[in-house]
Amino acid sequence: MNSTALQSLLERLFPLNRSLTGDGNRETLRILQEAIPDLKVTEVPSGTPAFDWIVPKEWRVKCAYVETLEGERVIDFNSSNLHLVGYSKNFSGVISKDELLSHLHSIPELPNCIPYVTSYYDDYWGFCVTQQEIAKLDEEFYRVVVDTDHFDGSLSYGEIYLEGESTQEIVFSTYICHPSMANNELSGPILAAALAKNLKERHTRKFSYRFLFLPETIGAIYYLSRNLNLMKERTLAIYVLTCLGDNRSWSMINSQSGQTISDKLAEFALRDSGKKFVQYPFTERGSDERQFGSPLVNLPVATIMRSKFGTFPEYHTSMDNLDFVNGENLAESLTLLDYLVEIHEGNEVYVNVVSAEPWLAKRGLARKNKENRFQESNEKLLMDFLAYADGNNSLVDIAQILKVSFREVSTVAKQLLQLELIKSKN
Amino acid sequence: MNSTALQSLLERLFPLNRSLTGDGNRETLRILQEAIPDLKVTEVPSGTPAFDWIVPKEWRVKCAYVETLEGERVIDFNSSNLHLVGYSKNFSGVISKDELLSHLHSIPELPNCIPYVTSYYDDYWGFCVTQQEIAKLDEEFYRVVVDTDHFDGSLSYGEIYLEGESTQEIVFSTYICHPSMANNELSGPILAAALAKNLKERHTRKFSYRFLFLPETIGAIYYLSRNLNLMKERTLAIYVLTCLGDNRSWSMINSQSGQTISDKLAEFALRDSGKKFVQYPFTERGSDERQFGSPLVNLPVATIMRSKFGTFPEYHTSMDNLDFVNGENLAESLTLLDYLVEIHEGNEVYVNVVSAEPWLAKRGLARKNKENRFQESNEKLLMDFLAYADGNNSLVDIAQILKVSFREVSTVAKQLLQLELIKSKN
Amino acid sequence: MNSTALQSLLERLFPLNRSLTGDGNRETLRILQEAIPDLKVTEVPSGTPAFDWIVPKEWRVKCAYVETLEGERVIDFNSSNLHLVGYSKNFSGVISKDELLSHLHSIPELPNCIPYVTSYYDDYWGFCVTQQEIAKLDEEFYRVVVDTDHFDGSLSYGEIYLEGESTQEIVFSTYICHPSMANNELSGPILAAALAKNLKERHTRKFSYRFLFLPETIGAIYYLSRNLNLMKERTLAIYVLTCLGDNRSWSMINSQSGQTISDKLAEFALRDSGKKFVQYPFTERGSDERQFGSPLVNLPVATIMRSKFGTFPEYHTSMDNLDFVNGENLAESLTLLDYLVEIHEGNEVYVNVVSAEPWLAKRGLARKNKENRFQESNEKLLMDFLAYADGNNSLVDIAQILKVSFREVSTVAKQLLQLELIKSKN
Repeated sequence: MNSTALQSLLERLFPLNRSLTGDGNRETLRILQEAIPDLKVTEVPSGTPAFDWIVPKEWRVKCAYVETLEGERVIDFNSSNLHLVGYSKNFSGVISKDELLSHLHSIPELPNCIPYVTSYYDDYWGFCVTQQEIAKLDEEFYRVVVDTDHFDGSLSYGEIYLEGESTQEIVFSTYICHPSMANNELSGPILAAALAKNLKERHTRKFSYRFLFLPETIGAIYYLSRNLNLMKERTLAIYVLTCLGDNRSWSMINSQSGQTISDKLAEFALRDSGKKFVQYPFTERGSDERQFGSPLVNLPVATIMRSKFGTFPEYHTSMDNLDFVNGENLAESLTLLDYLVEIHEGNEVYVNVVSAEPWLAKRGLARKNKENRFQESNEKLLMDFLAYADGNNSLVDIAQILKVSFREVSTVAKQLLQLELIKSKN
Repeated sequence: MNSTALQSLLERLFPLNRSLTGDGNRETLRILQEAIPDLKVTEVPSGTPAFDWIVPKEWRVKCAYVETLEGERVIDFNSSNLHLVGYSKNFSGVISKDELLSHLHSIPELPNCIPYVTSYYDDYWGFCVTQQEIAKLDEEFYRVVVDTDHFDGSLSYGEIYLEGESTQEIVFSTYICHPSMANNELSGPILAAALAKNLKERHTRKFSYRFLFLPETIGAIYYLSRNLNLMKERTLAIYVLTCLGDNRSWSMINSQSGQTISDKLAEFALRDSGKKFVQYPFTERGSDERQFGSPLVNLPVATIMRSKFGTFPEYHTSMDNLDFVNGENLAESLTLLDYLVEIHEGNEVYVNVVSAEPWLAKRGLARKNKENRFQESNEKLLMDFLAYADGNNSLVDIAQILKVSFREVSTVAKQLLQLELIKSKN
Repeated sequence: MNSTALQSLLERLFPLNRSLTGDGNRETLRILQEAIPDLKVTEVPSGTPAFDWIVPKEWRVKCAYVETLEGERVIDFNSSNLHLVGYSKNFSGVISKDELLSHLHSIPELPNCIPYVTSYYDDYWGFCVTQQEIAKLDEEFYRVVVDTDHFDGSLSYGEIYLEGESTQEIVFSTYICHPSMANNELSGPILAAALAKNLKERHTRKFSYRFLFLPETIGAIYYLSRNLNLMKERTLAIYVLTCLGDNRSWSMINSQSGQTISDKLAEFALRDSGKKFVQYPFTERGSDERQFGSPLVNLPVATIMRSKFGTFPEYHTSMDNLDFVNGENLAESLTLLDYLVEIHEGNEVYVNVVSAEPWLAKRGLARKNKENRFQESNEKLLMDFLAYADGNNSLVDIAQILKVSFREVSTVAKQLLQLELIKSKN
């Protein structure tokens, strides 16, 4: 997918009213299916237990607004789905301005922004508005209509499974529960779908790949409650994808131990990208790594981001929009994710075939320049690779030792394999 | 014991003439027994072998002075027991000023101080005086009387044992062999007695506790020679207490390896205190950690101090007195030692009960504030605790990871135990 | 060997035309044999396979020069054996100045230097000259005579084996294939011979010692191809000696892992020398450590140098001569190598004999000065040694912990052995 295709997907998905459940989520998954038909949708009935939790009732918004007694609408869900607090209960009535104010949410320090607020497990209704809109409220009474339904429906999630030569899996998990917000969260599902599409088109896959499109927290917990043993058996690495649509530095959140293969390869790929790179410990977690990395689950999880959620001013506001995120940024992130996949697929362990250094001259590979006083000889990277291809170091290890990119060590490895100077350890 | 009680104990013990052996030590132990009657006294006869050593003869001072031929006393043991070199042999005679000078010890750079000097295993007598007193000596001859006895008596030491649920012991060792010196050494035995009293009054004790009041070096060596196997079997941690009566920073001496539980918990408690904290390696040892940490003994020993012996100007002089040390400083140190005990008693390893994060909302524990853009949610510490309660990390480990105090993690642990969200690992 | 003897050996060996093979190498080994008759010479026939390689044909130079058509010699091998590219093929004929220039090698930035160039496995002839000599070439045509032979002869190498109490070996390897160059390489074989001579004269040797004088690369590869199993079994440490004749800092190249006994003892000895010391990782290797440390060979190799090859301006030029290297510098390096041997021979592991600290006073060893307020007591090093003589720490470990020299800990160890306060761990 190029930046135009990514931009177009972004524009189609942005207006939908995603939440823990509901038609906004179903429509989101349907649009992603157009891009990658392997995406399967599962519906989980409300009330289904999942570890310590229960799948919530489905939430549907018919309409929601505040109007003057003369019928002038001053807040309307139709103009932005951020206006209504997520999972607001049904309510209608005429109330005083003061009572209304106790149900309004704004960000005083960002007077032009609508905040994003939810109230999933609380008996509450509320509206989110800009500080400027609050300033304009000058009537004594307002009519409030929140026409919503909480009913026994289902929670929807998406899953793509691409089989590879090994049943060992690389998992990418992302979430679909935020209404019109572009970086946190749409960048995640769009890139997961695009990455899956690229992998689907790949000639061979050494590993199997799984992509999860889950409502955050309850979706991940439900999925784990049904698949934990299989995931423990098969998951080589799991990455949470989020906040990948802005144009700032790369960042990642490490696993609890910081020592898994996910930590190692994500850090390597991000460093190798050349961009500024920020590494956060597990104490700074906040998305579904909270579940995947919890003690009894303990999967090798790392979270890959550009600006980390909770650290950028646009976070959870109406500023997290299509001015902030675009197809070009997404395309750059996709290149990084493709690179991470390439590293997983290619990270072999090799060992020398001949004892001591090989005789490159007889293969026509020795340096042509005889004045070898100080300059690097042409064969230096080749010989350096051999010096560390000891059956213990993977390509990533060697790249780190030699301070070169993964592509450079991969190219050398291919050349040495052809020359029969190295062989795979297995 | 409050600061008044500590001050009063300090004032009673200060004037006694402690040494390796003798009635000063017996009287010291008797006064400590008043505070904590569990203290048992043992007498070890002179000549008893102890590893490479032999328990020395008992030393008794009847009187010791220097006077002019006219009978004017210019130095008198009665005015300060520091005046006489410890274990001085019997001597009396008229000697020249020059010969007298060769038996006098002073500190030129501290002209108002009497130094503390001993000569345990040497056939010698001597006096310790201020530099100013030396300057005043203007007679040609002086009469010297050192009326002391070295006889087959015994070495006295004290021991308190408080049984706990486990036979595993936390040991606190301190020394009683310095005459009128307040920081090095009286702060040690007073705090050991006070800590024992607090522990005795404690409702439950997970561990057993042992307190040793030993003449330095020979006392520790004798004790080890009789109890080494049992100590190796039962000692979870051993702490030497000394120089805890001044009001400066905290400090500690690590064990030889620096990797024992004593190192870990003492360092944690001292850092957690918020005061400036200095850590010394085992190469800087100087008190009974020399014996407890010696290679064939190899107990997990750390030494806990405020100003380390040998580093403060008052050390081993008449300035180490009741102006320098007081009940208030001792009370602050006692609080630290109580805290160290609390850490030992409470340092459990917990593990999650439910897989993935628990549903706090159904327990009424989720944040009330819905505007969760940047602020820390109320439940953050709870969730962070759970994220690291993996059956490997102890409370101290979690406190260190989360950079919070032991009391904070203990409080969270109690709450989570009540909610049945964690259980003890054992 | 003192500096005069080292200087004299240097002067005799410098003019010889060493290469991979040939009479220059044989004469070099013969002169070294005069110094240390234990040196055995082995001849390996051309064409002998060695791992991936084949021993090359022997190369002999009868004469080689460039002259004007009037017979004026402008370049002559007889005036410097650097003038002829190593292993140049036979050629004679009249050629244009332009064609001649394409066979000339110089260093434009060092216009007075002749570079050192070889072309072992290439069908080529060439001359090395100063930039100034090139500037003077003003004829249109020159007559070139390269009268050389490549014939089935043999490769010569030298070996010294000195038996010790143990069959475990310390190996020193150095190379003999560079014509008139003093630091890289003559310093190596001269010091290897001198060190062997010192070891031969040593009263006892705990370890056996082996010295290898090999043409670089092919010599090491041939030797390994015949002795690898035995070397793997017996080699405790192997050191490559090179560039030890200048007067700059010490340096070393670590093994691939950086964790072998060779790494540890070489680093300790070099640091202990007090001189500036530069440590290079294995990625900076360049001499026979390339072979000894290659993955399937994997011997514990470190390379010991002063200025590292490839880092100093004189490297591989006619400036690497007897102005740059002298007997005094070599003597200083020999002292270091003797010290490294002393460390290997003496690096025992000791353990205390008595539990707790010994009673030094009864042995007359306690401090005499009774005023022990702040000063170090005389017995501090003795007691510190005992505190770490735990059956795990070697003398080098203890020296590193106590930050003292190997000689200091050795002296203390001897004293404690005599006192029967420590015993060897074995």
